[in-house]
Amino acid sequence: MSTSPRQHIARTILPPSPAFAATYMRIEIICTGDEILTGKTVNTNFSYISGKLAEAGLAVARGTTVGDDRDSLLEAFRLAGERADAVIVNGGLGPTVDDLSQEIAAKAAGVSLVLNQEWLERIEALFRRHNLVMQPNNRKQALLPATAELIDNPIGTACGFELDIGGARFYFTPGVPKELYLMLEEQIIPRLLTRSGTAAISRVKRFHLFGLGESHADSLLEGIQDSLRDRDVKLGFQSHYPQLEVKLAARGHDAGELLGRLEPIEAEVRKRVGNFIVAEDDATLEGIIAEILGRQAASLAVVETLTSGLISARLARLPTAGGFFRRGLIAAAAAEIETLLGLPGGSLSGGPLTEAAMREAARAAFRQTGSTHALVVLADRDDAGQPAPGATVWIAVATAQEVAVRKSRLLRFSDDDWLRTGAVEMGLDTLRRFLLGLPIAEKIDAET
Amino acid sequence: MSTSPRQHIARTILPPSPAFAATYMRIEIICTGDEILTGKTVNTNFSYISGKLAEAGLAVARGTTVGDDRDSLLEAFRLAGERADAVIVNGGLGPTVDDLSQEIAAKAAGVSLVLNQEWLERIEALFRRHNLVMQPNNRKQALLPATAELIDNPIGTACGFELDIGGARFYFTPGVPKELYLMLEEQIIPRLLTRSGTAAISRVKRFHLFGLGESHADSLLEGIQDSLRDRDVKLGFQSHYPQLEVKLAARGHDAGELLGRLEPIEAEVRKRVGNFIVAEDDATLEGIIAEILGRQAASLAVVETLTSGLISARLARLPTAGGFFRRGLIAAAAAEIETLLGLPGGSLSGGPLTEAAMREAARAAFRQTGSTHALVVLADRDDAGQPAPGATVWIAVATAQEVAVRKSRLLRFSDDDWLRTGAVEMGLDTLRRFLLGLPIAEKIDAET
Repeated sequence: MSTSPRQHIARTILPPSPAFAATYMRIEIICTGDEILTGKTVNTNFSYISGKLAEAGLAVARGTTVGDDRDSLLEAFRLAGERADAVIVNGGLGPTVDDLSQEIAAKAAGVSLVLNQEWLERIEALFRRHNLVMQPNNRKQALLPATAELIDNPIGTACGFELDIGGARFYFTPGVPKELYLMLEEQIIPRLLTRSGTAAISRVKRFHLFGLGESHADSLLEGIQDSLRDRDVKLGFQSHYPQLEVKLAARGHDAGELLGRLEPIEAEVRKRVGNFIVAEDDATLEGIIAEILGRQAASLAVVETLTSGLISARLARLPTAGGFFRRGLIAAAAAEIETLLGLPGGSLSGGPLTEAAMREAARAAFRQTGSTHALVVLADRDDAGQPAPGATVWIAVATAQEVAVRKSRLLRFSDDDWLRTGAVEMGLDTLRRFLLGLPIAEKIDAET
Repeated sequence: MSTSPRQHIARTILPPSPAFAATYMRIEIICTGDEILTGKTVNTNFSYISGKLAEAGLAVARGTTVGDDRDSLLEAFRLAGERADAVIVNGGLGPTVDDLSQEIAAKAAGVSLVLNQEWLERIEALFRRHNLVMQPNNRKQALLPATAELIDNPIGTACGFELDIGGARFYFTPGVPKELYLMLEEQIIPRLLTRSGTAAISRVKRFHLFGLGESHADSLLEGIQDSLRDRDVKLGFQSHYPQLEVKLAARGHDAGELLGRLEPIEAEVRKRVGNFIVAEDDATLEGIIAEILGRQAASLAVVETLTSGLISARLARLPTAGGFFRRGLIAAAAAEIETLLGLPGGSLSGGPLTEAAMREAARAAFRQTGSTHALVVLADRDDAGQPAPGATVWIAVATAQEVAVRKSRLLRFSDDDWLRTGAVEMGLDTLRRFLLGLPIAEKIDAET
């Protein structure tokens, strides 16, 4: 009964346009390491590399995972060298005996290992700077194949490098995620783009949406590139429940040109799905709320039941929380909320919640806590006997001037956490909409 | 400067013992699908399959990832068929045109595709049961290679199957995680164990620890199998910060025998690291706390600052929370906690926290909330200027009879979330230890 998200892939990965027709390179990724091969560690580096290359318009044809084993590594390097134009190898550059990438790279390329004096000095300097004693095995990290060209790692002792094996150019990267990220984005992708003979830089604009499913967003944004006559801007979607990420990826020859081309398309995205965009790029929904409250020198109290403290946690863990987050009150039972807010017994627990009861609760939270804003998120759970159990979620925001109430039906879908996660996001998004003067009751796709 | 966790792998994956000497099979995994190849989805199925096989004593030699593309799939199947004894293929069994596993399996095996009447009826029955109309493309899911032997999927329409390609036995599994998990654990692993000619079943006992790092736990448990003369029980570690999972994996011919062999080793593990075991198997730390409080008809109030509501959330989201979780009070500033608990101004915010102030706060939380237990977790953050910024975390538990206080220094390490996650776990574990009458101030490895 599974529904596949695949049908969108074909649409979102556009065929290369004439301007980029020369870019096809067969690229493979080889991930090394016993931790990954044995399942001890989930291989997030693979999806990271592959996703970043896709954003730059570079498609990966195959991935291979092998352990820290000489024969497996050599066979994997040789096979990829026969099939591919470019190969990214991840891991195996560390100081320990099971880190074998340099040794096997040299063997596969038929060259010797040579001590790279430049890199050795870099490692020594790094140890000195951290007041640490360099271990003899760190010296091994400066042994590189004779034909290797360095790829800088500004934050670690593992040296990246590139060289030819068979008919392919190999790029060796460290397994430590932070070091990999920096090296891939700042150095390897530009080198691959240059090598592909076309665009030199790429840029990805990201929008974070709440309330629209992937197919709905896809249909709302349909034809957006065509209408703007720029087929080299690629539209993509990535679902991170409860949010949906909408990405615009573009390639070009300089940053100014890219920004200029992206700008009208970004404006069109905001026009078509604007209210549902909770944040852009590295910003977050809770960060936007914190920013608005901070600008107004406002303070917030949160009252929650079903959401179990998760709304408070999203806000209270921000570095700026001290400035705006006043108080979070959490209970499992509505009757306990009555006690906390000084409401008459039964006003929230005596039957299904009502708009009037929510108004009263939000007003009480506002008065009691001395905050400028109060957010109250309560819920009536369905009986488990119902055909599709879920909850009626009630959200109220109160200030000195007004009280706004939103009622929503959310389904449990796979489990309680699914329902709770949706309610957390809806609570935060309702506050964001309230603060920005947007309609708070706009229907979202997850509602029934 | 990265430290590698690899050095433990060699020790924890023991060489096959004489009793299992015949078990070596070369196993490969092939994961298919454009979502995985393009990095849209992180490939958790690979680590799941590989990890489960490792627990059963079956090592994976290589992993391959390919997209929904006929040529790539055929090449991957043929290469693995030449190299391996057994191959597990994941994905590509769905109803859509880009699901190609059956078609390419038939081609690689040199046999035709045949409609499997038995499976077609299963799919039709499944649709009838859910009152859904079967789409014509679901019929495609019953087209199997002529030589395929069915592997049941009791919860989906994608049919698992096995057949020979080249010199290897191939096992085809669905990409939907729940369907894969059931099929792998209940059917494929037993078949692989039987095929390897040795043990027929495997069992994994899991302990969840808080407070011991992997190398410390490893040294405490060193030689545990030798001393018990059962080298076929394999000891393994998996770190899920802030917890460490210790696993005992055993293989045997019947369940009774396995249980009997595992029991003395489990007892020895409890003897050596007992206080640090927060839960076993599918149980959780918060679940254990809920169970004890529930048994005592007790109720709990939680007061937190640094931990931002995350301690409350761990408890309040449990299905049994209504029975014991009374109230969670969260603030960013200690002064707000004074207001909430009716303490004199400055008692918590006037300088560094003290044991006396924590006692007073816990007593006030106990009195104010009417709960039988109060847990108060506060912290003094270091100035960012200090060499290794972190926090002094203070934890107090109060009942009508007593108040217990724990003080701990935790480092920030990589970021604030790291520190916060450690403090959440320490808060919950202190409550667990208090409830069980264990020493609450036993030093943990993450403390300075």
